[in-house]
Amino acid sequence: MSAYKLIKAEAVAIASRRLAGKAKAPAILQATPLDQKFDCQLFIQCENQQVTGSFKFRGAMNAITGLLEQGSVAEVCTHSSGNHGKALARAARLHSIQADIVVPENALPAKIAAITAEGARIHLCQANQQAREAGMQKLVDTGLTAIPPYDHPLVIAGQGTWALDLGKQLQDLDILLVPIGGGGLAAGTILTRDLLAKSGTTIPIVIGAEPEQADDCWRSLQQGQRVLEHHPDTIADGLRAKIGELTFPIIKAGINTVLRVSEAEILAAQHLVKDTLLQQIEPSSATVIAALQRYPDLFKGRRVGTLFTGGNAN
Amino acid sequence: MSAYKLIKAEAVAIASRRLAGKAKAPAILQATPLDQKFDCQLFIQCENQQVTGSFKFRGAMNAITGLLEQGSVAEVCTHSSGNHGKALARAARLHSIQADIVVPENALPAKIAAITAEGARIHLCQANQQAREAGMQKLVDTGLTAIPPYDHPLVIAGQGTWALDLGKQLQDLDILLVPIGGGGLAAGTILTRDLLAKSGTTIPIVIGAEPEQADDCWRSLQQGQRVLEHHPDTIADGLRAKIGELTFPIIKAGINTVLRVSEAEILAAQHLVKDTLLQQIEPSSATVIAALQRYPDLFKGRRVGTLFTGGNAN
Repeated sequence: MSAYKLIKAEAVAIASRRLAGKAKAPAILQATPLDQKFDCQLFIQCENQQVTGSFKFRGAMNAITGLLEQGSVAEVCTHSSGNHGKALARAARLHSIQADIVVPENALPAKIAAITAEGARIHLCQANQQAREAGMQKLVDTGLTAIPPYDHPLVIAGQGTWALDLGKQLQDLDILLVPIGGGGLAAGTILTRDLLAKSGTTIPIVIGAEPEQADDCWRSLQQGQRVLEHHPDTIADGLRAKIGELTFPIIKAGINTVLRVSEAEILAAQHLVKDTLLQQIEPSSATVIAALQRYPDLFKGRRVGTLFTGGNAN
Repeated sequence: MSAYKLIKAEAVAIASRRLAGKAKAPAILQATPLDQKFDCQLFIQCENQQVTGSFKFRGAMNAITGLLEQGSVAEVCTHSSGNHGKALARAARLHSIQADIVVPENALPAKIAAITAEGARIHLCQANQQAREAGMQKLVDTGLTAIPPYDHPLVIAGQGTWALDLGKQLQDLDILLVPIGGGGLAAGTILTRDLLAKSGTTIPIVIGAEPEQADDCWRSLQQGQRVLEHHPDTIADGLRAKIGELTFPIIKAGINTVLRVSEAEILAAQHLVKDTLLQQIEPSSATVIAALQRYPDLFKGRRVGTLFTGGNAN
């Protein structure tokens, strides 16, 4: 049975009910100045206003809450240099359980402080994927429950709820446009698409945006299977993660296309948003705006829903 | 003939055509987090993204353009400590005419620099209304054309265009909510209301928000005539101006109600917007949010259109 079958759209609806009153439904920016530029109608949900400053709280909170419903969870752990770690630490604190976060030693002191401020324990490790995963495994071996940044059914379903909130305010979106790193947001959004189709007369397609210099999802789709070689080199630090074992099959089955953008295009998009919307967004967010700018024909005349993923760098 | 008859709604439609391609249609924030708080649907047009950083560019640009259509204008002047001066300076520059701005000597150096950067000439005067008006009169006496901050038909019509842009994106607003200082924005919005009624099935009412400590419009409405005694003492520096000779009759004829808010309420609203929408707004803008918070029954269940007036202090 494929992962796409394993995680059903209904999981997003359940996540949405779990998050009611816990996660925020942030403001939606109808980005008129960019509409004129891109000849489409662009709606941006400001997940930088979300609890802990990014959409990551949705997945983390849904995961802990869902696991607690299934039985006792004494302590959770993850590896993260930023948004997911902070989100998990907050979600754990709200449930009065302990969180242990494996953090690469080159993480910014402010981020470590933010995680510590939520009452989580920090475990420093070397700054590479292997050391991060090994650090987390060590904690799991002592009995902790791992909640990885994206490759977890409850995390995926939680991330999908952003689009459900958007769909409650705006019917008949033609396109949902999301950045792709590990793929949790994209996979969740694909699951949500079916739920949104019920509330409007249009079934939105899901399009992903990925940095050329971290394009493992795009390459995986080209090859029909998950590529394991991945040497990300992008300023979009939130998108450096390797596409997930669980997220990839969902994306493969459900995504319309993945658009790649260059580093220069990401930077230009970041400036464009600063100049026109007066918003300082993280490079991961700018990736979707860069995709709009590079592939205008795909979006022309359409109602496009997207998000600012977070205000922290990831 | 009343001023309300003198300036017709059609003047706003003409202003809108004049401003096409010159003024921006800024982003609209669907402020979902505040919706939940106020139990209404709140749409905020971000005029802080407007050319020169405030809605004032609409009135200034419409005035100069309209005057040039009527005949030759060699040079314009006004008095302003901020947004209107900067807007007029830019509008003049775009039309390659000279602008002279009377600026109170206590204006912030950054504001003076911003006006100078647009190529306008600065005339410093004492920091009171009388000295400002006398300074402008002196310039008028030498042949310059005065474009006052609000008491001018073309300025009023220009300010009204903000609501026309909002109405193009959002039909069927129940309420237009605006801050009141000199009354240019409120009077323009009242004129626009008739045009908006044509595009939807709802005729919006116009509600004003005014600081208790600068409530000359409210007092004027109570007395049925413009009160001249006015000792404003509010942090909402954009709203300290005296209600206009031309704007007051329009407001008297067309406004639904003026809501007063305290200084503490303005400050609290400013913090609320910072906390929920991550936007730093000027106190003048916070006045409308404070009104929503103080008089929830008036807005309950309604679709409310309002604006962030500017990002500069005024």
